[in-house]
Amino acid sequence: MNIVVQKFGGTSVRNLECMKQVLEKVLVPYEKGNKVIVVLSAMSGETNRLIDLANEWSDTPDLAEMDSLVSTGEQVSVALFAMLLKDRGIKARSLLGFQIPIKTNVAYTRARILDIDREQMNALLEDNDILVVAGFQGCNEGKRITTLGRGGSDTSAVAMAAAVDADICEIFTDVPGVFTTDPNICSQARKLDTVSYDEMLEMASMGAKVLQIRSVEFAKKYNVKVHVRSTFSDEIGTYVTQEDVNMESLLVSGIAYDKDQARVTLAKVNDEPGVSATLFTPLAEAGILVDMIVQNPSRDGRTDMTFTIPRADLSNTLEILDRIKDSMGAEEVLYDQNVCKVSVIGVGMRNHSGVASHAFQALRDENINILMISTSEIKITCLIEEKYTELAIRTLHNTFGLDKSGSEENML
Amino acid sequence: MNIVVQKFGGTSVRNLECMKQVLEKVLVPYEKGNKVIVVLSAMSGETNRLIDLANEWSDTPDLAEMDSLVSTGEQVSVALFAMLLKDRGIKARSLLGFQIPIKTNVAYTRARILDIDREQMNALLEDNDILVVAGFQGCNEGKRITTLGRGGSDTSAVAMAAAVDADICEIFTDVPGVFTTDPNICSQARKLDTVSYDEMLEMASMGAKVLQIRSVEFAKKYNVKVHVRSTFSDEIGTYVTQEDVNMESLLVSGIAYDKDQARVTLAKVNDEPGVSATLFTPLAEAGILVDMIVQNPSRDGRTDMTFTIPRADLSNTLEILDRIKDSMGAEEVLYDQNVCKVSVIGVGMRNHSGVASHAFQALRDENINILMISTSEIKITCLIEEKYTELAIRTLHNTFGLDKSGSEENML
Repeated sequence: MNIVVQKFGGTSVRNLECMKQVLEKVLVPYEKGNKVIVVLSAMSGETNRLIDLANEWSDTPDLAEMDSLVSTGEQVSVALFAMLLKDRGIKARSLLGFQIPIKTNVAYTRARILDIDREQMNALLEDNDILVVAGFQGCNEGKRITTLGRGGSDTSAVAMAAAVDADICEIFTDVPGVFTTDPNICSQARKLDTVSYDEMLEMASMGAKVLQIRSVEFAKKYNVKVHVRSTFSDEIGTYVTQEDVNMESLLVSGIAYDKDQARVTLAKVNDEPGVSATLFTPLAEAGILVDMIVQNPSRDGRTDMTFTIPRADLSNTLEILDRIKDSMGAEEVLYDQNVCKVSVIGVGMRNHSGVASHAFQALRDENINILMISTSEIKITCLIEEKYTELAIRTLHNTFGLDKSGSEENML
Repeated sequence: MNIVVQKFGGTSVRNLECMKQVLEKVLVPYEKGNKVIVVLSAMSGETNRLIDLANEWSDTPDLAEMDSLVSTGEQVSVALFAMLLKDRGIKARSLLGFQIPIKTNVAYTRARILDIDREQMNALLEDNDILVVAGFQGCNEGKRITTLGRGGSDTSAVAMAAAVDADICEIFTDVPGVFTTDPNICSQARKLDTVSYDEMLEMASMGAKVLQIRSVEFAKKYNVKVHVRSTFSDEIGTYVTQEDVNMESLLVSGIAYDKDQARVTLAKVNDEPGVSATLFTPLAEAGILVDMIVQNPSRDGRTDMTFTIPRADLSNTLEILDRIKDSMGAEEVLYDQNVCKVSVIGVGMRNHSGVASHAFQALRDENINILMISTSEIKITCLIEEKYTELAIRTLHNTFGLDKSGSEENML
């Protein structure tokens, strides 16, 4: 039994006309004899409408009720789409999270999928040629509805593909695939034919909107072949797969950026054991995601702690620091909102040392000052002043010859 | 554990302001220490919006998908209402049909409740002080969502009251209770303090909109005490209960009517065995509800068959008759849409024979011609010309002294 999983977002199902276009996409693998699992999001605007209702009803809506409320968006989409299929005489039906079930933990509004009943899915695929699965939702042990967080339908699709051992998981979206960088900033950005799970993870964590980060983790864990492609054309998009010998042998596959950043410095804190815990534990408890962290070498028993956080968490962070700074002997709290993270990403870096210095030189040549640096195995991230964002991206994109596939600058 | 079930319709939950009024009603039994089960309909307009969507998507929407679609209306209501309760610090949660479960048969869009898990309900009532149950919906053996037909939330409420052995099932509506007849037609109509299940059944079957007929059947079967009352006041409404000695000892408790009728005559059919089956089987198969049936005495081996049907089914009925009339040797098909059924209802008739002649005389005195008559143990129905509807109702209401409780004309 060959199985294709296809996922369509809210824009693709926003009205009858759009759903008919989706139907055409679904018929392609169906007519080739594949079983098809279609994962749908809520019609665009619907999830926000429901969240607005909840916020009108309560300042702090109960999260379990919130999930039951917003999950109706996908329930409407899948019922309507299944009607179209039934009208064509196709053996099809809709499936909600509790019906399969898609088991999750109890973390309402940001649940994680624990298990999808494979036997049940196989039985359903015996009886139906197309299954229309509500994305974004699952069901916990207490039979209560959970949702997977924004963009969770990507994760639904990949998890479903893993559960049924699908040949491919096609994620249809409003862009043609994954690009070397943001085409709105760099006109020479090029669509990648393939990208590895790890590279995609780094890109997603940098705020690239193409795939929800959790869906990529899932794809990597269960080795699901993902094809990111456009709803509006039949062209091949980008395959997200395991790194292998057939991939383009590039040093660098993309330049990502994230403007939603603020830098905070706690100046001249006592450099003693436990100071990091004192600082970062209350931030973690407040749900603030600290990203880059730099601790200066100690001088006279004192050091500076600098870190980045999402910009929206700045005021909350400053409040917390105000509470704890005296106990750390800190002299002052400094912060800067006009910063941006720019990252050079590529699995080729693993075994190649020149990439970082190459990137630093390129930025220096444009007089762009690097405020902070952090590196991972396959990523180099520089924090720079926000006003240089576009210049830095274009410079780095050019430095590594990303506009041309297989350019000399970027070959291993 | 004292349990009160309360049901509120779509108008009562149509926005935040209305839901807050519902909250006040729910707090009354709650603050007296009762456990409360609140059954809610979809916000008014929502069910129709969803049905319109389905009809836009398909001329013949798949019924299973239809049920999954429209059941979202109640899902939204109960989540929002539960948020209000949680905000007050009340131990409460929403419950969907599949979560309890409310087991039904598979008859999508008009399912019947088979069973409600009592143990599960008891466990839920141990953990919560108020349960907010989605009306109108259930779940069949295949875990698919079913709905109970228009007005099905009444049935949900009564079935729930039966399952948990509630002290009372309060049906909140936009009228103050059950009236002796339609107050819009007869200004002297009087609200009844009590009405028996059987009388209520006859009234409901005549199109009185106060309670869904199935909910009354359920109430009767499980002896659930129902209180029909207004959402907009605190006044006592009408109790629907078992007939007992304490009830008003009236001959007649109400005059009901149904204008949605058409009369059809198949003239001069062969009067031979099986003729009724030949006629009514295809009508039943087409889902047409035949009500009154009269067969004239045979003359020369021929007879006239006359019956009434809902007006909306007339053209469909005429088509069917056209197909079968030759095989029955019928000479012609006659029909009349300008007719109305008027019924005199009362359990007191069971042991009292004068009611029918009393009613016929009253109509004759106003020169109202009776076209057809049918009787049951507690009801006399006359088909009359539609233009006499209001006159007939007022005349009968007056004849039996229904404007005065315990009037001489109407006492046993």
